Amino acid sequence: MIIQTFFKEKKLRKRQLLLEQGEVCRYLSFISSGLMRTYNVDEKGNEHMSLFGWEGWWLSDFNSFLTGETSVFSIDAIEPSELLMITLADYEALTLAVPLMDRYFRILYQNSLITKEKRLLSSIKHTAEEKYLQLADTNPEMLKRVPQNLIASYLGIAPETLSRIRKKLIHSPTG
Amino acid sequence: MIIQTFFKEKKLRKRQLLLEQGEVCRYLSFISSGLMRTYNVDEKGNEHMSLFGWEGWWLSDFNSFLTGETSVFSIDAIEPSELLMITLADYEALTLAVPLMDRYFRILYQNSLITKEKRLLSSIKHTAEEKYLQLADTNPEMLKRVPQNLIASYLGIAPETLSRIRKKLIHSPTG
Repeated sequence: MIIQTFFKEKKLRKRQLLLEQGEVCRYLSFISSGLMRTYNVDEKGNEHMSLFGWEGWWLSDFNSFLTGETSVFSIDAIEPSELLMITLADYEALTLAVPLMDRYFRILYQNSLITKEKRLLSSIKHTAEEKYLQLADTNPEMLKRVPQNLIASYLGIAPETLSRIRKKLIHSPTG
Repeated sequence: MIIQTFFKEKKLRKRQLLLEQGEVCRYLSFISSGLMRTYNVDEKGNEHMSLFGWEGWWLSDFNSFLTGETSVFSIDAIEPSELLMITLADYEALTLAVPLMDRYFRILYQNSLITKEKRLLSSIKHTAEEKYLQLADTNPEMLKRVPQNLIASYLGIAPETLSRIRKKLIHSPTG
């Protein structure tokens, strides 16, 4: 199959690093199986989750991949994972060879923009509890698969705060 | 020219509303001239800027446009503006009639994803002053064109805080 020839396969162990913050991100990666995360570490050593991805998701430091600038994110495996990886040159070649891939990625990016827009608005206007409820509503799969401490980081709150919110919701008569 | 037949033109006066939060967003709009903004108003009546756009930018409540859900953003004109507007049906028809438009939008959305990713990370990890400096670095055009009170709202800070940051930077020996 022609599309497959543009990709190389890679297997990652649990906790194995795919990309280290500060490197240039050379690949756009499709997750065939497993669970991965993208995160930034700030000057004080605090981790800020950007994204969790599993089967069917694409991962990269997108700015770094497209522009060749150094990445602001690290990417590693939360569970053992299998990836299909493509370089920028092959990504461009693929969309020229198979124009339907332009359409595929156009629609993929539309959906990604919607997700990012919702998250951005939520980060500006919602309290921690509202953010958690919105996540439960829009992405219940993430809450099932991803460890609690990483969810807390994704929401930009302390693990204790998340634990308090969850207890409150469980014990709430309407929750 | 075939592409043009998919769009209808619209002129907006200064402050005229293009989309009201809570309506369904029926159009994706290309700005031919002018300056527009997209913003959300929360339950307490506070405005949260999402985006400023001028000549060459595309505007919509993207989720509402694509899914038919009600919009979480209002869109209005900061300056008198001229738009080219396309419905979802015509947007789909256009990309089928002119496959190169898939490529065009794919690349447009790539760039938009990069911008949103940077802003999201910045909103999570940066102080108000760092956010302002990053904006000055990545989008000086916005600082030139958009009124200060709207920039403050975009950064999620009070106008007085922005004014203090700007004074501090102007008077700083390295600034």
